[in-house]
Amino acid sequence: MTRLRDQALQMHEEKQGKLSVQAKVPVANEEDLSLAYSPGVAEPCLEIEKNQDKAYTYTMKANMVGVVTDGSAVLGLGNIGAQAALPVMEGKAVLFKNFGDVDAFPICLDTQDVDQVIETVKLLAPTFGGINLEDIAAPNCFAIEEALKEQLDIPVFHDDQHGTAIVTLAGLFNALKLVNKSFETIKVVINGAGAAGIAIVKLLAHFGVNDMILCDSKGAIYQGRSNGMNTMKEEIASFTNKNNIAGDLRTVMEDADVFIGVSLGGLVDEAMIRSMKQDPIVFAMANPDPEILPELAIKAGAAVVGTGRSDYPNQVNNVLAFPGIFRGALDVRSSDINEEMKVAAVEAIAMLIKEDELRADYVIPNPFDERVAPAVAKAVAKAAKNTGVARID
Amino acid sequence: MTRLRDQALQMHEEKQGKLSVQAKVPVANEEDLSLAYSPGVAEPCLEIEKNQDKAYTYTMKANMVGVVTDGSAVLGLGNIGAQAALPVMEGKAVLFKNFGDVDAFPICLDTQDVDQVIETVKLLAPTFGGINLEDIAAPNCFAIEEALKEQLDIPVFHDDQHGTAIVTLAGLFNALKLVNKSFETIKVVINGAGAAGIAIVKLLAHFGVNDMILCDSKGAIYQGRSNGMNTMKEEIASFTNKNNIAGDLRTVMEDADVFIGVSLGGLVDEAMIRSMKQDPIVFAMANPDPEILPELAIKAGAAVVGTGRSDYPNQVNNVLAFPGIFRGALDVRSSDINEEMKVAAVEAIAMLIKEDELRADYVIPNPFDERVAPAVAKAVAKAAKNTGVARID
Repeated sequence: MTRLRDQALQMHEEKQGKLSVQAKVPVANEEDLSLAYSPGVAEPCLEIEKNQDKAYTYTMKANMVGVVTDGSAVLGLGNIGAQAALPVMEGKAVLFKNFGDVDAFPICLDTQDVDQVIETVKLLAPTFGGINLEDIAAPNCFAIEEALKEQLDIPVFHDDQHGTAIVTLAGLFNALKLVNKSFETIKVVINGAGAAGIAIVKLLAHFGVNDMILCDSKGAIYQGRSNGMNTMKEEIASFTNKNNIAGDLRTVMEDADVFIGVSLGGLVDEAMIRSMKQDPIVFAMANPDPEILPELAIKAGAAVVGTGRSDYPNQVNNVLAFPGIFRGALDVRSSDINEEMKVAAVEAIAMLIKEDELRADYVIPNPFDERVAPAVAKAVAKAAKNTGVARID
Repeated sequence: MTRLRDQALQMHEEKQGKLSVQAKVPVANEEDLSLAYSPGVAEPCLEIEKNQDKAYTYTMKANMVGVVTDGSAVLGLGNIGAQAALPVMEGKAVLFKNFGDVDAFPICLDTQDVDQVIETVKLLAPTFGGINLEDIAAPNCFAIEEALKEQLDIPVFHDDQHGTAIVTLAGLFNALKLVNKSFETIKVVINGAGAAGIAIVKLLAHFGVNDMILCDSKGAIYQGRSNGMNTMKEEIASFTNKNNIAGDLRTVMEDADVFIGVSLGGLVDEAMIRSMKQDPIVFAMANPDPEILPELAIKAGAAVVGTGRSDYPNQVNNVLAFPGIFRGALDVRSSDINEEMKVAAVEAIAMLIKEDELRADYVIPNPFDERVAPAVAKAVAKAAKNTGVARID
C-alpha cells in the first residue's frame, strides 16, 4: 500500500485537487465581454426571470449535478467530516464527467444536522440540474433524500443507496439466468442494514422477490424486534422476513439462494455457503475485505460470486450506474429519479451481456465498458418519459 | 440592441451556459481509478482529517472561489431572483478564470434572508478557498459581508462594493496627479449610497480624504438626518460631511474637486460641473447612462472624466480588480481581504500607468491590459503578508 499511498498523495498534490472550472466562451476582447458579461448577459437573465425553465436553455444548470456530502460516512473511513471528504467528492465529479459527460461539483457541508442539510441543499438548487447525495450515514441519508425528493423539482439520488443496489441487482439478474432461478422463488439474505442494504432490499422487492431477510449486527431484522431498530428497519421488517425468524446470520443463511453482503469483511465462512441451497449466488461486497473471499466461496460451492473489488470478476462498481442515470435524467429534464428509472437502469446494465456471453465470472459488465453509460442513459430517459417525470422529449 | 440581444441569447443557448467542470486527472483505466478514486483517494482524505490545512495541498479548495448571490440586485436589472442571476454569476466565473486563473463556481441562493445567506455560506465553506459576494442589495450586503468576514477563515469580498471602489480610487489616484491635487485637501461628493457608494467613501477615508459628502436620493447625508437613514448611512455620517450640510446634489457639488456618481443617469448637468472647483474630476459611473455624458462634462470644464462604459476612455471596470485580488489572496492562503490589501490593489492598478503616460483620457488601464492582474496579485499578496493574514509565504 505504500506505493499506492505515495502515488495518490503525489498526484493530488501536483494537481492541487482533481477539478477545475472551465469557460466555454472566450473573453479575448470587448465584444466577447459584451456577450458573456455586461451588457449582453442581461438578455438570458431577463428570459429566465420571465420563465424559470429557461435556465435549462441558457445556463449550466442543464448539465450540472451537485455532489453533496456531510462527510459522515466517507468510503470505508467513517465520519471524517466535510473538509476531509472533499477528495472523494472531487473524484466522484471526475467520474461523472468521464463516464457520463455530466458536469458535477462537490458541495461539502459543514454540518451533520439533517434539517440543516435539507435546508441548505434546497437553497442551492437554482445552480443545479440534479443532486447526488454521497457518503451520508444511515439513517440520516434516508430522511435527507426523502425530504429533498419531495421538495425539489430536480432529481435527487443517494448513490450509496441506489447506485450500489442497481449494480447488485444487475449482477443478480444475470446470475439467476445462469442458475435457472427466478426472482419470485428465491430466498435472499442481505447482511448490512446501512444505506446500501436498505436500498437493495427495496429494489429486490421491485423485482418481485418475496422471501428475503435483512440482517444487521444483531442478526435478522423482524417485526417486533426490540433492540437496535430504527424507522427504516421497521419499514423493512414490515415486508421482509414474513415468518419473523430471529437468529444470527449463520442461522438465516441456511437454505438461502442468494447472499448479499454490504457490511464487514470475514463474516461468512465456507460452512455458511455450504448450508445454502444448490448453486448459491454470493455478492460479498465489503471493502477492501469481502465477507468471504471469492476463492473460498467457490470452493464451498458458490455458482456465482461478485465483490466490490477490481481484482476479482464481477465487480459491483457504482460507476456502472450513476453517470448514465444522471445523463438520462438530465437529457429529458426529469424532475425525479423514480423506482421505474432505477429498474430500467438495472435491466440496461444486465442486458449488455448477451445470453451467450454470460458466464459465472461475467455477470456484470466491466466498469470501463463504454457501452454502459449510453445504454443506461437511454433506458432511464425512456422510463422517465413513460412515468411522466420527463419535462422534454 | 436587437443584434446584441440575439447574439447573446444565441451564444448562451448554443453553449448551454458558459461553464463546465473539467477533470485534471485521467480515468482511462483501473490504475487511474485507484488513484483518483477508491482506494487511493482515502490517503489525501486521511491527511486532511489529521490536518485540515492539508485541504489546500490536496484539493481544489486552494484555487476555488464561490461566487455567491441572492439575486437581489443583479446588474442594473434589480431583484430578479437567484435563478435568473445565474448567467451573470457564470459570466463572473468566466472572468475570474480568464483574468486571474482562479477557478470560480456560481452559488445562486434561493433566499434573500440575511441570516439564511450567512448560515448557508458558512456551511459551504469547506469547498471553497474564498467567497466573492455578488449582486446582493444594500443594506443586506453589508451585514452579510461583515458576518462572513468575522466567522470564516477564508477571504470574503463583496465585489460590488470593493471592486468598484478600488478601480475608482485607482483612477482618482492618477487623476489627482494630473491636476496636482492631493487626497488630503480635496472635497469629494459621492452620489449613491448603495453598495458601491458606501465602499468608495470608506476607501477614500483610507486614502486620507477629509472632506467628503455622500448623497442619496434625498440629498446630502448628515448626522441627525431624520429620513431615509440606515445603520450604514449613520456610520458614514459620523465621519463625513463634518459641517452637517443639508441640501440636494446641486447644492453640495458647489466647490467640490471631485464628483463620483454611482446612482442614476442624467442627474448632473453642465451647470453643476461649472459650479465645481477648478479642474474638476468627474467619475460618472451610472450604467448604461452616466450621470452626465463625458462630452458634456468636458465641455463644462472637467479635467478628467471616467465612466462605467467601454466606449469612453477611463472605464471603471471591476475586472481590473477582483481577479488579481483573489489571485493574490489565494496564492498566500490569506484568511482575509483587508483594507491594506485593497489599498495595495488601488496603488498597483494606478501605478501601471507611468507618469509620462498619464493623460486625461488615460488614468485607468484598459481592462484587457495583461499586466494588471499579476501586478494586483503581487501587491495584494505582499500586503497580506505584511498584515499577518497570509498563511504561507
